[in-house]
Amino acid sequence: MNNYSSKLVEGAVNELAKLPGIGRKTALRLALHLLKEEKIEAEMLGESIIKMRTDVIFCKVCQNISDDEICFICNSPKRDRSVICVVEDIRDVMAIENTSQYKGLYHVLGGIISPMDGIGPGELTINKLIDRLHESEVYEVILALSATIEGDTTSFYIFKQMKGLEIKVSTIARGVSVGDELEYADEVTLGRSIINRLPYENSFIK
Amino acid sequence: MNNYSSKLVEGAVNELAKLPGIGRKTALRLALHLLKEEKIEAEMLGESIIKMRTDVIFCKVCQNISDDEICFICNSPKRDRSVICVVEDIRDVMAIENTSQYKGLYHVLGGIISPMDGIGPGELTINKLIDRLHESEVYEVILALSATIEGDTTSFYIFKQMKGLEIKVSTIARGVSVGDELEYADEVTLGRSIINRLPYENSFIK
Repeated sequence: MNNYSSKLVEGAVNELAKLPGIGRKTALRLALHLLKEEKIEAEMLGESIIKMRTDVIFCKVCQNISDDEICFICNSPKRDRSVICVVEDIRDVMAIENTSQYKGLYHVLGGIISPMDGIGPGELTINKLIDRLHESEVYEVILALSATIEGDTTSFYIFKQMKGLEIKVSTIARGVSVGDELEYADEVTLGRSIINRLPYENSFIK
Repeated sequence: MNNYSSKLVEGAVNELAKLPGIGRKTALRLALHLLKEEKIEAEMLGESIIKMRTDVIFCKVCQNISDDEICFICNSPKRDRSVICVVEDIRDVMAIENTSQYKGLYHVLGGIISPMDGIGPGELTINKLIDRLHESEVYEVILALSATIEGDTTSFYIFKQMKGLEIKVSTIARGVSVGDELEYADEVTLGRSIINRLPYENSFIK
């Protein structure tokens, strides 16, 4: 029996429930919310999703999501073209941009190496990164991947692929978060922050 | 600055973030998920939402969501037309249908009286319920609303509106949940379950 009373509602619930982190109960709640809202709201939501998926392209240079062939960061004359920061996806670009501490370019991998999820180096844009490093004059590559086994594996893979290129490779600092109390930091993080200690005069935020 | 790199992504995130319980971070996660999936997935999601909102109608009899003028419950010859169960929305219809313990008809209010949210009796289908009770031969109305102040207020309002109609009005039982330990039940629930105690032979599930 069709417990949803309506095949149309059931169809929308089925589609919404395919989204990550959204189960059937949440999907039904969203569908009922859309039914209570004005028609234009549902149309704007549906059309913006279709338009985004159909029209978004990837920046030819850094593989970031973009509306144009070359994204606004790669296109900006204000950015330092000698540094490339390698990140997993657009969320990391946004997070780093929000710090206002970085003025170089990016390279978006589109994921990290994760054999459990069937993602190998071939699924990522690592080859495009290597080509890019051969073609342009880059002084430093910053590996800004997650501090997980998968992130470390991906960093090491890229480091190996860059052999022969005379480019400085660095990785973002791991340590106790700003504002955190020392006693609550985990041992590995605390240990790394002691090994990688800085001259005191370098520790101020510029 | 457009931190989303893409106005199309930003547009979809803005729309997704309007949904209840979905913040901007979750909306971005959903948008990035859709970008990684096949194009057909985003199209099916977007189109099913628009189609649902455009084409769904409300059952002329019980105000339940329906694909046809009269919903499949009101249309079924197997249902007992002398009992009407009054519920808040389609989710409650589904929950009660799933118990397989009810064979009567429904009346969907489309919400409950909640002055805090600006919902008065006029926003609900209470007048349609009263009209329906005048027009058809109903023996019993079961008020199956939430056990909250708003639910109790709505039940009382409907009860008052039904004055003069010679129809039995009942409300679903409140008590200790099946499977719950007594010591963890709250006092009001436990108190109600003692006041409304049943003859032991009535307590078996049929």
